Amino acid sequence: MMIVMKEGATEDQIAHVVERVEEIGCTAHISKGEILTLIGAIGAPDKVAELGLEGAPGVDHLTPISKPYKLASRQVKEDRDSVLEIGGRKVGGTNFALMAGPCTVENRDQMLASADAVAEAGATMLRGGAYKPRTSPYSFQGLGREGLRLLAESKERTGLPIVTELLDVKDLDDVLEVADVIQIGARNMQNYSLLAEVGKSGRPTLLKRGLSATVEELLMASEYILKEGNENVMLCERGIRTYETAYRFTLDLLAVPALKELTHLPVIVDPSHAPGRRDWVEAMSLAAVAAGADGIIIEVHNEPEKAICDAAQQVPTSEFQALTSKIEAVADIVGKTVSRA
Amino acid sequence: MMIVMKEGATEDQIAHVVERVEEIGCTAHISKGEILTLIGAIGAPDKVAELGLEGAPGVDHLTPISKPYKLASRQVKEDRDSVLEIGGRKVGGTNFALMAGPCTVENRDQMLASADAVAEAGATMLRGGAYKPRTSPYSFQGLGREGLRLLAESKERTGLPIVTELLDVKDLDDVLEVADVIQIGARNMQNYSLLAEVGKSGRPTLLKRGLSATVEELLMASEYILKEGNENVMLCERGIRTYETAYRFTLDLLAVPALKELTHLPVIVDPSHAPGRRDWVEAMSLAAVAAGADGIIIEVHNEPEKAICDAAQQVPTSEFQALTSKIEAVADIVGKTVSRA
Amino acid sequence: MMIVMKEGATEDQIAHVVERVEEIGCTAHISKGEILTLIGAIGAPDKVAELGLEGAPGVDHLTPISKPYKLASRQVKEDRDSVLEIGGRKVGGTNFALMAGPCTVENRDQMLASADAVAEAGATMLRGGAYKPRTSPYSFQGLGREGLRLLAESKERTGLPIVTELLDVKDLDDVLEVADVIQIGARNMQNYSLLAEVGKSGRPTLLKRGLSATVEELLMASEYILKEGNENVMLCERGIRTYETAYRFTLDLLAVPALKELTHLPVIVDPSHAPGRRDWVEAMSLAAVAAGADGIIIEVHNEPEKAICDAAQQVPTSEFQALTSKIEAVADIVGKTVSRA
Amino acid sequence: MMIVMKEGATEDQIAHVVERVEEIGCTAHISKGEILTLIGAIGAPDKVAELGLEGAPGVDHLTPISKPYKLASRQVKEDRDSVLEIGGRKVGGTNFALMAGPCTVENRDQMLASADAVAEAGATMLRGGAYKPRTSPYSFQGLGREGLRLLAESKERTGLPIVTELLDVKDLDDVLEVADVIQIGARNMQNYSLLAEVGKSGRPTLLKRGLSATVEELLMASEYILKEGNENVMLCERGIRTYETAYRFTLDLLAVPALKELTHLPVIVDPSHAPGRRDWVEAMSLAAVAAGADGIIIEVHNEPEKAICDAAQQVPTSEFQALTSKIEAVADIVGKTVSRA
Repeated sequence: MMIVMKEGATEDQIAHVVERVEEIGCTAHISKGEILTLIGAIGAPDKVAELGLEGAPGVDHLTPISKPYKLASRQVKEDRDSVLEIGGRKVGGTNFALMAGPCTVENRDQMLASADAVAEAGATMLRGGAYKPRTSPYSFQGLGREGLRLLAESKERTGLPIVTELLDVKDLDDVLEVADVIQIGARNMQNYSLLAEVGKSGRPTLLKRGLSATVEELLMASEYILKEGNENVMLCERGIRTYETAYRFTLDLLAVPALKELTHLPVIVDPSHAPGRRDWVEAMSLAAVAAGADGIIIEVHNEPEKAICDAAQQVPTSEFQALTSKIEAVADIVGKTVSRA
Repeated sequence: MMIVMKEGATEDQIAHVVERVEEIGCTAHISKGEILTLIGAIGAPDKVAELGLEGAPGVDHLTPISKPYKLASRQVKEDRDSVLEIGGRKVGGTNFALMAGPCTVENRDQMLASADAVAEAGATMLRGGAYKPRTSPYSFQGLGREGLRLLAESKERTGLPIVTELLDVKDLDDVLEVADVIQIGARNMQNYSLLAEVGKSGRPTLLKRGLSATVEELLMASEYILKEGNENVMLCERGIRTYETAYRFTLDLLAVPALKELTHLPVIVDPSHAPGRRDWVEAMSLAAVAAGADGIIIEVHNEPEKAICDAAQQVPTSEFQALTSKIEAVADIVGKTVSRA
Repeated sequence: MMIVMKEGATEDQIAHVVERVEEIGCTAHISKGEILTLIGAIGAPDKVAELGLEGAPGVDHLTPISKPYKLASRQVKEDRDSVLEIGGRKVGGTNFALMAGPCTVENRDQMLASADAVAEAGATMLRGGAYKPRTSPYSFQGLGREGLRLLAESKERTGLPIVTELLDVKDLDDVLEVADVIQIGARNMQNYSLLAEVGKSGRPTLLKRGLSATVEELLMASEYILKEGNENVMLCERGIRTYETAYRFTLDLLAVPALKELTHLPVIVDPSHAPGRRDWVEAMSLAAVAAGADGIIIEVHNEPEKAICDAAQQVPTSEFQALTSKIEAVADIVGKTVSRA
Repeated sequence: MMIVMKEGATEDQIAHVVERVEEIGCTAHISKGEILTLIGAIGAPDKVAELGLEGAPGVDHLTPISKPYKLASRQVKEDRDSVLEIGGRKVGGTNFALMAGPCTVENRDQMLASADAVAEAGATMLRGGAYKPRTSPYSFQGLGREGLRLLAESKERTGLPIVTELLDVKDLDDVLEVADVIQIGARNMQNYSLLAEVGKSGRPTLLKRGLSATVEELLMASEYILKEGNENVMLCERGIRTYETAYRFTLDLLAVPALKELTHLPVIVDPSHAPGRRDWVEAMSLAAVAAGADGIIIEVHNEPEKAICDAAQQVPTSEFQALTSKIEAVADIVGKTVSRA
C-alpha cells in the first residue's frame, strides 16, 4: 500500500503515519519528493487498508499497489491457463465451451425437446434453471426439485453435462445430485456463505459477475470459492448496469481480455441476458468468441414464444445449429475449438 | 402493460400480439394512431412481461404502466406514512431516528464506551456489526456470537434498541435474541431466501439499497419481506455505484423524496459508507436530514484510529454530541424531531 | 406521448390534462382501465414533453411512444442501409470500412511511415489528428495546420481518403481542404453549433458517441447534421463511462446491433480508446466486426513507444497486416468485405 | 507518477522503463519490495503519462501521485476560500449565493414578473436563459438577443446581477453586454475553445459539471478558464448520469465537501435539473445548503404550467419566498448567510 501525503504535510504527520504502519507489523518506506512525500507500507495490505489512514492528518490518499486476490491470479499458475475437465469435456486454453439450453426448466416436453436440439447441434454442455431468482416475489420461482429431475433425465438422454443455478445453501445437496457445474447468479456473487459452501463441495462452478461488480471484485468473489480448495471455477461476464436504457444491461466484452490477463481461470460470456432480445444475441455471441472468451452460455428454447421466463431472449432451437456453425468459424480464427466429449 | 407496435406493423402482427395477450387471460385494448398502434394489455402485468413480446414481429417495445410493487406502495396506506414502534421509539412521520454506533463490535471496552457516548448524545438506537460482509475472504469477518453478547450488554446498560446485520439464515435465531432491528446489507438486498426468513420473523428490518439497485428494485425487495406479513420495514439509501472515484459511493439523496412519494415505509440514510472518510460525514448527515429522511444510521467510534474495520469513516464519539445538535436543528426546520423513549 | 395518471386521479385532474394537451393543438385520447387512466396525446410529442405535466396534479409519469429522431430513423430509408461513397470507397451495407492511422500527426517521418504501412495493409481510409482535445490545458494540443498539411501529403502519397477531427468552427475551412471525413469527437457530440456547421458543409462526418450519451442521444445529435441536408453521417461507438476502472471506458458493442435496428446510418467502432492498451485492441477489433459493425477506426503508429499522445493504445504498424487478415476473416463470416478503391 | 512493475519483472524491463523516464527529463526513483518493484517518475507527470508505459513489457499499471490541476487547487490560495465579488455581492466563504429565475426567457411579462418575485424574496442574483442547448434540433432554442435585452431590462429594474448561459463563441460579445456571470452548461464543460474565450473575457463564470464528468475533470476544465487569468470561476454540481431512471439525473451532493477540500473556488448546486420535478426541488435545495454549498441556482417561474421549457421543474414564484426562509435557516446552521447587496 502506498500512502500519499498532502503537499505541506508536517514531519509530525509523517511520523504518525509511520508509527501506525509499524504498529501492525508492516515496514514503512519513506520517499520524499520535491513536493510530496510517499510512504510505502510493505506487508499485509489488508491490515494497512483497515487502519483508516484516509482520514488521518496530512494524508492525501492511499493507493493499493499489489493485487488483493491470490489464488485467482495468473501468477499462481505461472502464467498458464487453467483447463478444467467437466464430464469428459475440457474448458480453457484452446477448448471453447458452448453451453446452451432453456432459461428455465418448464416441463418434460420443453426440456427434452430443447436438450435434444442442443445435443444435436454439438454443444458442450446443457443449461437449465430449476431455481430462479426473481425481482418480484409474485413471479414464477422455478420448478425446484422437479426441475432437477428433468435435468437428470435430459443428461441421461443426451450425455451432456448439466449447468444449473443454486440460490440457497439448503438446496445444495439436491443440486449436487445432478449438476456438473453449479451456477452462481449475478445477484449472489457476494453471497459469501453460499460461495463458501460451493467451494467446500468441490463441484465445478460458474460464477457470474454481479450487476455492478468490478473485474477485481469478481476475482475476489472467486477467491471465496478457491480458498476452500475448489479450483474448478469459471468466471462469467453477463452484462453490467450502466445508464443506457436501450438494452437490459451493457455487455462488457472488454472484461474478457482484461480477465484473461489477470487470472488463469476460464472466462465465459452470457450473450443472452444483456440484450434481452433474441435478435441481438447472435451478434453478441460471435463478438464474445472474437473477444477471446473460453465459452458462452446461451439461452435456447424449442418454442421461445411459449417460454415462461425471459421468453424474449431465448433463441429458437431451430436456429441454433446455424449459429453454432458461425461460432465455430469465429473460434477457429482466434485459435479455439468447440469442446466435445 | 402497453405494447408499442412498430411503424408499419401489419394487421397480422397486431392480431398475433392480441391473441397472445388474450391467451394468458388478459384483455387487449387496441388504440390506432396516425403512425403507431398501441396495444394495452390489461390484467396481470407480470405475465404479460413474461410473454417475451419484445422479440415478436412488428413489436417495437413494451412499457410498463402500473407499478410492480403492491404492499410497499403509498396507496396501500391511503397516502399516509407508516410509523413503526421499535423498543418504545417511533420511526416515521415526524419522528426522526438517529441510529449510531461502531461499524463493528470489536471488544468489550470499545463497544461499551461507544454505546455510552451514543446514549449520552441522545440517539434513538445503537448500531454495531457482529457479522461483517467482506470483499476479501482474508479480512476480519466479525466477532459473531461474542459480538451479539456485547450488543446485549450494551442494550441492557443504555436501554437503546439494537440494530445489527444478519448475513446468513443460519444465524437468524442468534440475531433475533438481541436485535430490535435486523439490518440487511446492500450485498444481500436481492438474497431472496434471507429476505423471506426475515419477513417470517416479524422483526423490524432495515433494508439497505443494493450498490446498483434502482429505487423500484429496492421497493420490490421490500415486498419479499412485506408479503410474509412483516410490516416493519425501513428502507435505507447508502450510496450507489457510479463512475466517480473521488469517493467510495455516490450518496443518492434524491432517492429520499422519490421514495417518500412512492412508499409509506420510513426512509433512512447511511451517511458514512459513501464518503468513506469521516470529515465528509457531517455534511452528508445534515444533507440527509434536510432532504427529508426519516432517520440516519451513522458510524461512530470511541477511538476511530484504532477501529478494525472502516476506520476512516467513523466519527469520534467526542464529536457526536455537537453533530447531534446540528441534526436536531435541521430536523426542526423540516418538521421532524429526534425520536427518544 | 402517453400520460399515465395516478391511481385515484380525479375527473378534474384528467380534464385538466386533456385541456392542456388540446391547448397546444394535440388530440387527447383517454383510456380508462380498472385501476389507471391513460391519456394518449397525439401529435407534436416535443410540445407535449415541454408542457411539464410530470409535476401536474394526478399525473404519475409520461412515457414517450414515438421516436424523437426522424431523418436518422431506419423507416426513412424504408428499412435499407445507407451506403456512403467516400473517395471512391463504399461504407455501409456489406462494405466494411477499415480506418487506421496514428492518434496524432506528430511529424513528417512518423506520419508518412504510418500512412505507408496503413496503405500497404489494405486499409480503407487513413486517420490522424491535427487538433487534439485534451483534458489538461497543459498537454500537447496538436500540430494544427501543419498537421493538416502532413495529412494532405499522406493522402497524395497513398491515395487513401483522410479522416481527421474538427474541434472548433473557426478551423472548419482548413479542415475541409484535406478531410474526406470530418470526425466529431465524443466531447463535442452535443456541441450543437459545431454539428450544424458540419451539416452545412455537406462533408461526410464520423460522429462519435459522447462518454455518457445514450444510443437515442447519439441519434438525436446526428439529426442536427442531417437536418442541414448532409446525409453522409457515420455513427461511432467508442466506449462509455461506467463504474469499471480496469480500463478507460467500457466498449458497448451491444450498441452496434441496437443502432443497426434503429437507423440506416453506418455504425463504426473505435476499439482503441476504451482499452487504452494495445494488447486488448485486437480482441476488441475482432469483436466489433463480429458484432456487425460497418467499420472500425483504429490507432496504429510506426513507433508506438515514441508516440506523443495515447502511446499505450496504438498498435505497431508491424502488427497491423496480421490484424487486418483476421479482421477480413471475421468480416467474411458476417457477410462483409473490407472496402477498397 | 508511480509506475508499478509486474511480479517477476526483469532487470532489463526495469532498466527500459527508467531509460524512457529519463529520456523526457524526469528522475526515476526505484523502490524494490519483496514482491514488486515501484518506479517513481519525478517531474512532469503529463509527459510521463504520455509515454504510454501501460503497454510496456513488465509494467503492471501507472498511478498518478500528484494532482493534475494547479490554479484551481486549494494549495494555491494557502488553504483559503476564494471570495468573488459580483455586482456588489460576495460569493464564497460565509457568503451564500441564492441565484434564481426562469429556465428560459420567454417574453417580457414572464421575465419581468419572475424577476420581481425573485428580487422581492431576497435572492442574490437573477438567472434566465436566452440561448438554450436542446437535445432535439426541433425544440425551441431560446429567444437569443431579444432574450438578452429582456434580461438587461430585468437587471435595470431589480438591480440584481444576471447569470445567463453562453453556448457559442460567436455570441460572446452580446452576452458580455448583459451577463454579470456567464454560465457554461454541462454539455460544454469540455468545449475547450469556449472555455478559453470565457477565460480571456475575465467575466465571472459558473462552470457546470458535465453529465459524466468526474470531480477531477471539472477542476481540469476550470483550469482552462483560470489559466487565461480569469480567477472568477464558480463550479456547479447539477446531477450526474447513473443507471437510476426514477429521476433525470442523480444529484451528487458528496461532490460538495469533496470539491471544498480540493479547491478554493466557490461550489454551487443546481437543485432543479436532477429531479426534473418541482415537488422534489425543495428537498434538494435544503440538502445542498446543508451539504455546505456556497450557493444554489434554482429555477423559478411566475406561471410554471405555461413555461416553454422544463416546465415540470420550475418552482412557482408564489412559493419561492417560503423556500428562501428555509434556505436561510439551514444556511445559518452551517455558518453561512445569503449574500445581498
